[in-house]
Amino acid sequence: MKSVFGNNLTLSLFGESHGPAIGAVLDGLAPGIPLDLESIRLQLDQRRGEANLSTARREADRFELVSGFFNGYTTGAPLTVLIRNEDTHSGDYSQLQTLMRPSHADYTAQCKYHGYQDYRGGGHFSGRITAPVVVAGAICRQILASHSILLGSHLLRCGGVEDASFPEEEAALRQALSHCNASAFPTLDPSAGERMRRRIAEAKASLDSVGGVIETAACGLPAGLGEPWFWSVESELSHLLFSVPAVKGVEFGAGFAIAEMTGSEANDPFYYDEAGRVRTKTNHSGGIQGGITNGMPLVLRTAVKPTASIFRPQQTVDLAAGQDATLALKGRHDPAIVHRARAVVDAVVAFGLVDLAAGRYGTDWMAAGFSGQKRIFEQ
Amino acid sequence: MKSVFGNNLTLSLFGESHGPAIGAVLDGLAPGIPLDLESIRLQLDQRRGEANLSTARREADRFELVSGFFNGYTTGAPLTVLIRNEDTHSGDYSQLQTLMRPSHADYTAQCKYHGYQDYRGGGHFSGRITAPVVVAGAICRQILASHSILLGSHLLRCGGVEDASFPEEEAALRQALSHCNASAFPTLDPSAGERMRRRIAEAKASLDSVGGVIETAACGLPAGLGEPWFWSVESELSHLLFSVPAVKGVEFGAGFAIAEMTGSEANDPFYYDEAGRVRTKTNHSGGIQGGITNGMPLVLRTAVKPTASIFRPQQTVDLAAGQDATLALKGRHDPAIVHRARAVVDAVVAFGLVDLAAGRYGTDWMAAGFSGQKRIFEQ
Amino acid sequence: MKSVFGNNLTLSLFGESHGPAIGAVLDGLAPGIPLDLESIRLQLDQRRGEANLSTARREADRFELVSGFFNGYTTGAPLTVLIRNEDTHSGDYSQLQTLMRPSHADYTAQCKYHGYQDYRGGGHFSGRITAPVVVAGAICRQILASHSILLGSHLLRCGGVEDASFPEEEAALRQALSHCNASAFPTLDPSAGERMRRRIAEAKASLDSVGGVIETAACGLPAGLGEPWFWSVESELSHLLFSVPAVKGVEFGAGFAIAEMTGSEANDPFYYDEAGRVRTKTNHSGGIQGGITNGMPLVLRTAVKPTASIFRPQQTVDLAAGQDATLALKGRHDPAIVHRARAVVDAVVAFGLVDLAAGRYGTDWMAAGFSGQKRIFEQ
Amino acid sequence: MKSVFGNNLTLSLFGESHGPAIGAVLDGLAPGIPLDLESIRLQLDQRRGEANLSTARREADRFELVSGFFNGYTTGAPLTVLIRNEDTHSGDYSQLQTLMRPSHADYTAQCKYHGYQDYRGGGHFSGRITAPVVVAGAICRQILASHSILLGSHLLRCGGVEDASFPEEEAALRQALSHCNASAFPTLDPSAGERMRRRIAEAKASLDSVGGVIETAACGLPAGLGEPWFWSVESELSHLLFSVPAVKGVEFGAGFAIAEMTGSEANDPFYYDEAGRVRTKTNHSGGIQGGITNGMPLVLRTAVKPTASIFRPQQTVDLAAGQDATLALKGRHDPAIVHRARAVVDAVVAFGLVDLAAGRYGTDWMAAGFSGQKRIFEQ
Repeated sequence: MKSVFGNNLTLSLFGESHGPAIGAVLDGLAPGIPLDLESIRLQLDQRRGEANLSTARREADRFELVSGFFNGYTTGAPLTVLIRNEDTHSGDYSQLQTLMRPSHADYTAQCKYHGYQDYRGGGHFSGRITAPVVVAGAICRQILASHSILLGSHLLRCGGVEDASFPEEEAALRQALSHCNASAFPTLDPSAGERMRRRIAEAKASLDSVGGVIETAACGLPAGLGEPWFWSVESELSHLLFSVPAVKGVEFGAGFAIAEMTGSEANDPFYYDEAGRVRTKTNHSGGIQGGITNGMPLVLRTAVKPTASIFRPQQTVDLAAGQDATLALKGRHDPAIVHRARAVVDAVVAFGLVDLAAGRYGTDWMAAGFSGQKRIFEQ
Repeated sequence: MKSVFGNNLTLSLFGESHGPAIGAVLDGLAPGIPLDLESIRLQLDQRRGEANLSTARREADRFELVSGFFNGYTTGAPLTVLIRNEDTHSGDYSQLQTLMRPSHADYTAQCKYHGYQDYRGGGHFSGRITAPVVVAGAICRQILASHSILLGSHLLRCGGVEDASFPEEEAALRQALSHCNASAFPTLDPSAGERMRRRIAEAKASLDSVGGVIETAACGLPAGLGEPWFWSVESELSHLLFSVPAVKGVEFGAGFAIAEMTGSEANDPFYYDEAGRVRTKTNHSGGIQGGITNGMPLVLRTAVKPTASIFRPQQTVDLAAGQDATLALKGRHDPAIVHRARAVVDAVVAFGLVDLAAGRYGTDWMAAGFSGQKRIFEQ
Repeated sequence: MKSVFGNNLTLSLFGESHGPAIGAVLDGLAPGIPLDLESIRLQLDQRRGEANLSTARREADRFELVSGFFNGYTTGAPLTVLIRNEDTHSGDYSQLQTLMRPSHADYTAQCKYHGYQDYRGGGHFSGRITAPVVVAGAICRQILASHSILLGSHLLRCGGVEDASFPEEEAALRQALSHCNASAFPTLDPSAGERMRRRIAEAKASLDSVGGVIETAACGLPAGLGEPWFWSVESELSHLLFSVPAVKGVEFGAGFAIAEMTGSEANDPFYYDEAGRVRTKTNHSGGIQGGITNGMPLVLRTAVKPTASIFRPQQTVDLAAGQDATLALKGRHDPAIVHRARAVVDAVVAFGLVDLAAGRYGTDWMAAGFSGQKRIFEQ
Repeated sequence: MKSVFGNNLTLSLFGESHGPAIGAVLDGLAPGIPLDLESIRLQLDQRRGEANLSTARREADRFELVSGFFNGYTTGAPLTVLIRNEDTHSGDYSQLQTLMRPSHADYTAQCKYHGYQDYRGGGHFSGRITAPVVVAGAICRQILASHSILLGSHLLRCGGVEDASFPEEEAALRQALSHCNASAFPTLDPSAGERMRRRIAEAKASLDSVGGVIETAACGLPAGLGEPWFWSVESELSHLLFSVPAVKGVEFGAGFAIAEMTGSEANDPFYYDEAGRVRTKTNHSGGIQGGITNGMPLVLRTAVKPTASIFRPQQTVDLAAGQDATLALKGRHDPAIVHRARAVVDAVVAFGLVDLAAGRYGTDWMAAGFSGQKRIFEQ
C-alpha cells in the first residue's frame, strides 16, 4: 500500500505534475449520494489560491468523474476523478534532473527511484496531486454535512501574524466555520488577514517565502468515533495530514502547549448542559479522549513550512557533476502555500472522518443523510 | 482493522488492564533473528519507570513469548508476547463505571461500547497495554541495530524545565543516543534532569501532575525509505505515535517552528561531505523530504499531556445519577508519565522504521544483519 | 499481512503445535454480544473428531478468553483466544528436522524459514492451529444466528462414498443444516455415513488415509452482500477456505460442473414467489451472482486431500545427509481429517460472512440481533 | 477495500462498461522496469478474442498509461491504465434497468446499489473491466519473465471437449507454455481446439453458449513463496481468480480429484534429481505444500461458466412491473468467453505471484531482473 489509504473508504492517488493526467480513485462510497459539483469546484478554486498570491500556472483544474457517478448520484462503484495536465512548461524543469532543490523531494526521489522518477515539476511529489484529493474531500464534506457535521479551517498564523481563535460556543463556531468555508484566504480577524497578505507580498518582493499554521475544527461529530489504539482519530487524521506536502507538525486540542500545563489545568471537567448532554468546560482534549470523539468540537492544528521554491540563489549539489553548485530557480512559484494547503487539510480531515464513521455505521450510512432529497429509484 | 497496524510487519494489540492477560502479535518477522531478551527486559523496565517517580503497581512485567520464538531465534511465524496481569486491585476502580474521570477515556469508552467495556483500570485503554508494544519495539530496535541504525529519545521538556538539544554531528549524536538508551530518565543535561525530577515531586506533593515533550532521533537510516503520499515516513510514524495514550502533538525536524521561518531560513542546503556523501548543512527537515528519508538523522518530537489521574477533587458527571458530581481519585497514579512514555515512543518509531524498510528491502532484510553471528541451520 | 485476514473484522492467528500455546485475536467485534461458551465447546469437539476415528492426542482444547470478554459479553476490544499446549510428545518429531514428510509443509517450511522454523509437529503449519479459528468461527456463527442466518456442512464425499444432496427447499434445508450442526460426522444419508466410517477404518487398517469433499450451505443471507471484483463473496470465502490446511479445491453453486453445461442449462431463471420475493428456479449460481448474494442459499464445496501422514513407508529426502531416504512415520495420525476439517470450513465461512456484512451494515450490526436478550448497561 | 487488492503491489479497478472510461491503478511497482508495450497489446488482443468467436464490439482497447511511466520505464509512482469507452450503444441496454438478466449481476446490483448503479452493459460488473486487469497482469508477467518465471494457460475443457494435459517434464512444459502464450485459442492438441471451436459455433447457432475449464501452469518459481495461513499461495490466487467474472471453481494440483485418492496415492514423494535439487516424483500438490511453493511447477484450474447472455428467450422478473416476464436479449454476446477469460486468468495469477514475491524479496526485486538491459540513470 503506497499511494492508497483508508479502511472503509479508500483513496488511491496517481499522476505526475507534467504527465498526461493526475487523479484519484475513491472506493467504498455508498450509492445514492447526490454530488454538488459546484461545491467541489469552489474547493478546487480555494486550493488554487488567489490570483495575486499564487502560482502563475492558471489551469482551471477541470475535473472529470470518469467512473462511479451516474445521473447525478454516486453509483457505489469506485469513483474516479481525472484531471488532465494542460498548461505544462516542461522546459522549465530540465535542470532538476541533476540540481537538487533544497528541501524539495528531488534528492530523496533520486535515492528512492534511482533516476527513473519523472523529475519534471516534482513529478508524483508535486503539490498538484492534491487537486484530486480536494475533490475526494469535497465529496466527503457533503456526506458529513448531510449528517449536520460541519468542518472548516482558518489561518491561525502566517508569516509571523496571528489570527483570532475559534470561538468556543458551538453556534458561534458553526458561524465562523461557514465564514471560513466561503473564503479563499480564511481568517477570523479581517485585519490579521490583511497583514498576512502583506507579509506574503513582502516575502515575494524579497524573493523569499513564508509558512504558517492552519487551525481546523469540526462540529456535530457523534461521540464514540475512533478506536483505542492504532486507529484513534488522531492516528487516522495525522496519518492523512502528514501526507500533505510541506506539513511538519500536527497537534490536537491544546497540542504542544498541553505539555506545559499541570494535570489540574489540562483536564477537561465534565458537566451536564441544559439539554442534558455531557459536555466539557474546557476543550484541551480537542474533542478526542482515548482516541475517540467525545462530542465536543474536534480541534487540530497543522504546521506548514514556507514554500521550498524561492528565487534567491541557494547552495546545493549537482549530482551529474558530483560537486557542490548554486541553484537559481526560475518559473512559477508561490511565496506562500499555507492558504492553499488549507483546502487540502479540510479535504483529508473530511476523508478521515467519513472513513471512521463508515466503519462503525456501515457503508449505507454515507447515503442515509440524503434520503429526504433523493429520487426514488428503488423498486 | 482496529488494534492492528503495519503493512509489512503487523502488530495486533490485545488485553485489558484487569483482565487475565495483555499481549501483542508481531507478524511478518523474518526467521533467524536472535533475540536479546535482556535488552527487551531493560526497555520494559524503562517503561515501568523509576520506583520513586512511578506508580505503585510493581508488577515485574514478566513477558512470555508463546509463539514464533524457538531455540533463541525468531521462527518467521507470528511472534506472540503474553503478559499475565497479576497485581490487580479491581476494587479500586468500581466507581469508574459511572463517575467519568476527566480527560480519561471513561466517557468515550461508554459512548463507543455502551457499557460493555471492561471499565476496571481503563480496560483496553490502559497505558498498561503499552508493555507488549515495548517488547515488539525492542525486537525492532535489535533489527535496526543489526543494520547500524541507532535510535533513542530524551526528555526535551518536562514540567517547564528544558533539556539541552541533541548534538548535530553524527558521532556525537550516536553517543548521546547510547547515553539516553541506558537511562530510565534520559536527559542530555544532568542538571535539567535533576530539576525535572524535582518538578515532578512538587507536582506529586500538590496532588497534581506534569507533562512533557520527548525528542527522538535515529542515525544511520538509508536514504530512500518512505513513500510520497499516504505512507510517508511522517504519516507512518505519526500514526503510530498518536496511538500512544496521552500524546497530543507530533512534529518532525523544525516542526511548528518552521511555520515561523522564511523559506531562505528553513531550507536545508545540500553539500558533499568529505566522504563524498550528500548531506544538508541544517536539518530543519528532520531527515525527511517529500515523505522519504534523505540520510540525515531523523528527528521528531512528541508532546505528552500531564497524567490525567490526579488526586485533587475534580468536577465530573455521574452517568448513573444523571447529574454533576465530584470525583476524588484513590489508588496508584503517577505524577508524570512522560519518562515512561518515552520507552513506548522509541518502540513505535522502531516498529515503523522496520515496517517501512521491510517494504522496500523485503522480509529477508530483517535477518540479513545477523548473518555473521548466527548458527547455520540451513542445509 | 501474513497470518492476519479480514477487512472489518480481523483474525490474527498464532502459535505452534508444540510451543507453549496457540491462539487468535479477533478484532472488530461489536460490544454487547453475549457469547454461548457451550456452543463454542461443541464446535471445538467437532473439530477434534470422534475418538475412534481421530488422533490419539486427546487434549480437551480448553480455551481461555484472555481479552475482549467481560461479564458474559464481548466488550468491543480485541477478543483473544488462548489454548495452552499440554499433551505434547516432542520426542516423536525429532526426525522431522531433516526427513521431509511427503505432501506436508516440512520442506516448504525449510525453504522459507531456513531451518529456524519450529519443526515439532508441523509447528505453525499444524492443523492444531485451526482450534482458535473454530472458536472465532463459533462466535461469528452466533452473530449470524442472531440475524436468522444458519449455516452448516455435510460430508458430500469421503473415501469414494457419496452422501445425499442438500434439499433445495429452504425449510427442509434449514432442518438439514440443524441436523448437520448437531453431528460430529454429518451426513444427510445415515447409511452413507456408515459406509464412510467403514472406509476410513479400512484405510487405517491398510496404513493409509482417505480424503473427501465438504458441502456447505447458508440460509437467510440478505441479498446484496459482497463486492463486484476483489471482494466478491467467492473471493473472500475462497481466500479463507484455501487457508485451511489440506484444501485443494473450492467451488460455488454448480462449480466445475457448470463448465460442462450450456448457458440455457446453467442460467438460473428468476421468478416471484408467493411471498413476492424474487427467487431463482435453480441455484447453479450457489446464491452468488456478480460476486454478490442474491438471497438464495449460499452453496459451496471444499475438496480436502487425504491425510498426508500415513504409516506406510514413503520415499523422501534426508536434508542432512543430502540423499534419498525412506520415511516411516510413528506417533498419532488420523486416517481421515475431512470430518474434522468440516468444523474449520464452517468457521471460516461464518467469519467471512460476518466480515462482509459488517462492511455494509457497520460494526454495530453485529450486536443488533441480540438487543432483545441483553441486559441494559447503557445510561 | 472494495475494488482494491494486494499487499505489496496493489491493484485498484475502476470504470463502467458505458461510462467515459475504465482503468486501473497499479501501485507499488519498482522504478526502472522497461515495459514492452507490444506484449501488453498482444495480451489485450487475446482478451478480446478471435473475431469469429467473440463479441461484435470491436474496440481496439487502446490503453493509455497516464501515470507512473516515463521514458520507457516505470517510475515507481502509481501506474495508471486508462481505456476510453468508445463503441458504446447504450440504447441496447435500456430494458436492463428493470428486466433482470438471469445469472448476470443485474439483480444483485439492484439489491446492493438500490437502483443507482450504472445498469448499461453491466456497468462496473462488465467483463470489459478486465481489460485494465490484463494490462496490469502483462506488466507482472514481464517482471516474472525477468526472473525466468514463465506462466501460461490452455483450455483444458470447453463445451464438452477435452484437451491434452500439460507435460510433466519442465523443458517440455516451458515449450507448451510458450506455445499457449502465442495463441488466442490455446490448446495443446490442435484437434481438440478445432472441436472446441466447432462446439462454440454450434452453441451460437442454437442461440446458446458454452463454458470451460482453464488450466494454468507456472515454471521457475523459487521455493519458499507464500505464507502458512491466510496468505497461502492458494488463498492469494483463488481470491484473485474468483474476482474474475464467471469463475465458479478453482483447484490446485490434483484438486477435487485428490479427495478421491488415498494418502499413498496422493502424496508426492521427494527425491534428489541429477542436479541435486529436491523434486517430487508426482505433482498432485500443484507446486504448493503448506501454502508455500516447493519449486515444482504451479498448476491450477479455473472453471468458467457458459456466457450468461444467450439469445434464447428466458424467464425472469420485471422489477418495475413487479411480475414475472420473458427476456429476449439483443445486441452483441459471445457464445463462449472461456478463451477470453484465459487472458484474465493469466493476468491475475501473474499479479498474485509478483505480490507474494515482493513481500519476501522487497520492492527492489521487481526491477532487479532487468538490470542487465537497463540504461544507467543513477549517479
